[in-house]
Amino acid sequence: MENKQKTAILLLSCPDRRGLVSRISNFIFERGGNILDLNEHVEPDEKIFSLRVAWDTEEFSIKPNEITAAFSPLAKEFNADWKISFAEEKIKTAVFVSRYDHCLQEILWRYSLNEFGIEIPLIISNHPDCKTLADHYKIPFHLFPITPADKLVQEEKQLKLLADNKIDTIILARYMQIITNNFISRYQNKIINIHHSFLPAFIGGNPYKQAYDRGVKIIGATSHYVTEELDEGPIIEQDIIRISHKDTLNALIRKGRDLERLVLARAVQLHSEHRVLVRGKKTLIFT
Amino acid sequence: MENKQKTAILLLSCPDRRGLVSRISNFIFERGGNILDLNEHVEPDEKIFSLRVAWDTEEFSIKPNEITAAFSPLAKEFNADWKISFAEEKIKTAVFVSRYDHCLQEILWRYSLNEFGIEIPLIISNHPDCKTLADHYKIPFHLFPITPADKLVQEEKQLKLLADNKIDTIILARYMQIITNNFISRYQNKIINIHHSFLPAFIGGNPYKQAYDRGVKIIGATSHYVTEELDEGPIIEQDIIRISHKDTLNALIRKGRDLERLVLARAVQLHSEHRVLVRGKKTLIFT
Amino acid sequence: MENKQKTAILLLSCPDRRGLVSRISNFIFERGGNILDLNEHVEPDEKIFSLRVAWDTEEFSIKPNEITAAFSPLAKEFNADWKISFAEEKIKTAVFVSRYDHCLQEILWRYSLNEFGIEIPLIISNHPDCKTLADHYKIPFHLFPITPADKLVQEEKQLKLLADNKIDTIILARYMQIITNNFISRYQNKIINIHHSFLPAFIGGNPYKQAYDRGVKIIGATSHYVTEELDEGPIIEQDIIRISHKDTLNALIRKGRDLERLVLARAVQLHSEHRVLVRGKKTLIFT
Amino acid sequence: MENKQKTAILLLSCPDRRGLVSRISNFIFERGGNILDLNEHVEPDEKIFSLRVAWDTEEFSIKPNEITAAFSPLAKEFNADWKISFAEEKIKTAVFVSRYDHCLQEILWRYSLNEFGIEIPLIISNHPDCKTLADHYKIPFHLFPITPADKLVQEEKQLKLLADNKIDTIILARYMQIITNNFISRYQNKIINIHHSFLPAFIGGNPYKQAYDRGVKIIGATSHYVTEELDEGPIIEQDIIRISHKDTLNALIRKGRDLERLVLARAVQLHSEHRVLVRGKKTLIFT
Repeated sequence: MENKQKTAILLLSCPDRRGLVSRISNFIFERGGNILDLNEHVEPDEKIFSLRVAWDTEEFSIKPNEITAAFSPLAKEFNADWKISFAEEKIKTAVFVSRYDHCLQEILWRYSLNEFGIEIPLIISNHPDCKTLADHYKIPFHLFPITPADKLVQEEKQLKLLADNKIDTIILARYMQIITNNFISRYQNKIINIHHSFLPAFIGGNPYKQAYDRGVKIIGATSHYVTEELDEGPIIEQDIIRISHKDTLNALIRKGRDLERLVLARAVQLHSEHRVLVRGKKTLIFT
Repeated sequence: MENKQKTAILLLSCPDRRGLVSRISNFIFERGGNILDLNEHVEPDEKIFSLRVAWDTEEFSIKPNEITAAFSPLAKEFNADWKISFAEEKIKTAVFVSRYDHCLQEILWRYSLNEFGIEIPLIISNHPDCKTLADHYKIPFHLFPITPADKLVQEEKQLKLLADNKIDTIILARYMQIITNNFISRYQNKIINIHHSFLPAFIGGNPYKQAYDRGVKIIGATSHYVTEELDEGPIIEQDIIRISHKDTLNALIRKGRDLERLVLARAVQLHSEHRVLVRGKKTLIFT
Repeated sequence: MENKQKTAILLLSCPDRRGLVSRISNFIFERGGNILDLNEHVEPDEKIFSLRVAWDTEEFSIKPNEITAAFSPLAKEFNADWKISFAEEKIKTAVFVSRYDHCLQEILWRYSLNEFGIEIPLIISNHPDCKTLADHYKIPFHLFPITPADKLVQEEKQLKLLADNKIDTIILARYMQIITNNFISRYQNKIINIHHSFLPAFIGGNPYKQAYDRGVKIIGATSHYVTEELDEGPIIEQDIIRISHKDTLNALIRKGRDLERLVLARAVQLHSEHRVLVRGKKTLIFT
Repeated sequence: MENKQKTAILLLSCPDRRGLVSRISNFIFERGGNILDLNEHVEPDEKIFSLRVAWDTEEFSIKPNEITAAFSPLAKEFNADWKISFAEEKIKTAVFVSRYDHCLQEILWRYSLNEFGIEIPLIISNHPDCKTLADHYKIPFHLFPITPADKLVQEEKQLKLLADNKIDTIILARYMQIITNNFISRYQNKIINIHHSFLPAFIGGNPYKQAYDRGVKIIGATSHYVTEELDEGPIIEQDIIRISHKDTLNALIRKGRDLERLVLARAVQLHSEHRVLVRGKKTLIFT
């Protein structure tokens, strides 16, 4: 079997102290790795050091699957939150969708172009509408209709399906169901949502209507990790578009659609390239 | 005395019905006016017609100061909210400022370049800090220190000064005092404020701190007319700037400063060119 | 047969003179039309008047197919370039594509959402690659492989196919063939191209490579009507995206793709809503 | 004398090889430095390694003025282009200006707010217009009127003045004279210009007129280092603003002014924070 996992990526944060970059880069250098990209940041008030480093492991003296164990003692000494991933290892990702297909379409199209470092073994929906789109891209589509009565039962089935497929990351591509805390707790900082407003403006339902009624001159979209507090999760990416009084509510929805799919796509790309480091309620984006 | 009021501008809104453009343009044409710019909009749901039309009155058969009277019967028939202004008639404008000078600086610099159709006979402040800047631009600077005890008294003095100077419009260039409802009611849709966030996100105090804590990826600024509800007035202009986790709170404040002054300047320009039509809690911007 | 052509749209430009708005709006009013949207502009130096007006013809006293004849005398008197269209009359549009499918995909997806006022009876390509995409949207796909030897012959066949289908507008969705002047002359200001640079920067081939080599910090895309001078046609829409030294040439191409499809889509929408008025080498966009 | 030079900044580029980050960070760590910010980039095709690292030298075992000598052997081994600066050491900067004052105004205002890590001991102009502005900020203003006949003589006097004041960096704040190659060669990648177009579009004179005539929908501004080829120097920063057919040439000039001053200010800030690394005709911007 060939060694496909060529590029190792370490995401790490820990209390700041002298020598962190030096000792981490030595760890890589001494084992024959070549650093391709390194980005670090020290939060000046909190004194927290965060880093993303990617290195070529082609001539690395230890095997990819041994790197995590080898780095562990250092990480422990630093009291770090950390994870080592491989750029070439595709993240198993499920897409959840309801009726609106634009975000799903965008994700699948880019996926078909190989833009993301992900693999999509399945799509889950509470409505049958997007099945033909899933079929076009030849991805299994699983229908879980949800009523208030059977929501928990259906979620359990979804969780089993996800577990069976070793799903790591979930994209909510305009999935119009509130996910329970039980579900969220199993995918901490692994569920990527797209909210159709410039958070924290217009939290909650019908943000385009809220924006229209308020008479804002700019609308936005926000992609964030889902946490137990609705619309309060760490923000990955946001963008905006200018509107005017000539835009009807429908025009806002149409313009917003373009934002939603681009912002979600960028968030998925950042996540899949291991560029997002969550620290509390915020993210650091290493680009 | 020469006729300096060359370009008349009508801002009007009324219930929609057939023939409004025709009858208004006839009013202008029949008196020898030449339309320079006409922009209209019908809100499809509310069935409200709004219009801004500017025309050259050089060969107009009635004098500028008689146009309003001449148009009145038509406006009455249409049941319209309306106003006729003249592009060449500079709006008497007071600038209120506290300690931060960047917005005042921007306004005065553009004023000195003759960018706005305004005249600034006076600056009012509750702090002496900006006096040298006012001096540089040779504009009288009036200091009204404000304590909770004398706030109402000072406001009355301000109102008198404004009235004595026939002030029409007030720019709050980061004026850090809440203005009383009594004051606001005398300058309905005439007080232009700059709020240092992308409203309605981060309403209230210290929006940059709120933005920093929330971890947004974009910050904004909003210029709006002041109404009795804090930060809820009709929005004139907004803009945003991208930030990252590398930006400290101070960096947000610094970047935000650039936004604030540009957004405020654009709002002042739109207002001074009679391009802003307020309808309820929203504005139509005729550009 | 029902009257589907409800909203008439007049695009007109002519030498400026007094009374144009009045007489045109009277023409509409006297026949019972209700103006929905009117936008005019006078170029101050050239003294050219341009206008777009849309009106509801539901209670219009003359039939849709007689409006053009009825308006002719007025237009003649004004010495105008003009055209009357109907919002509900879908423009017959052919899409030309080569191998890159992102622009075609974007157009077809929006088309399927009914975003544009167009009908796409056929797709033409010089490569078979995009046939499956055309099939997915159930649009006839016509293959015209082109070699230097048979280019003119193939173009004649294309022109015949277009004529047979009464095609009015052509979208070049990254069609990688130079179109001959003969072809262009038959579709004056009817061929919408997307150029993958911020024109006039990087005219000609391989603009992303040129941008990469020059080290610009922003790349762009431009949609324009095709004229006989390459990349010199009237610009309909442009947009940009920020890049950095970290972006490889491939990253520019990938980011540029997102721009191209959005800019082309916006241009198609503006064109299909009769919002683009061409004046010489420039456009007026009535939004 | 206190040690004011607290934060050392190394900018370095060299052929890529294994261990560069490790050895450079060890150099810092072993001497007691604490890395505050590290950013590196490897150009994948050219195999060139570039890095910016900033570290706290408070407990550094060697003195600030000895660091360059201490690092020299390493840099030589790497065959590197490099420079060590100190964040707290203000760059002696001269501003050149002609008649337009907006860029000078912006620079001086931000300078007065201490936004830049620069010191401005003098302003040079070929016109007396901006003297009052210089006076307001209490900066010596040197007038060098230039005619074709005495251009070289005046430049020599300017160069002497710059040398006497130990000027390191020159900001051309809309200085409307072509600088000779002799002058440029003494300030390689040290002269920051603002060009009032989105380079490489509209190279040369009167770019707003060119933009107006071409009918572009977006205008831009570009800040770059001055090289012997006009408008071809490495680009530091660019930005754009949307325009429409309603914008007259004067409106473009006015809107462009806002761009010019912001883009120039950002370029000066990047330069003064030692975030710009020039590689051939391009820059790397470490932010």
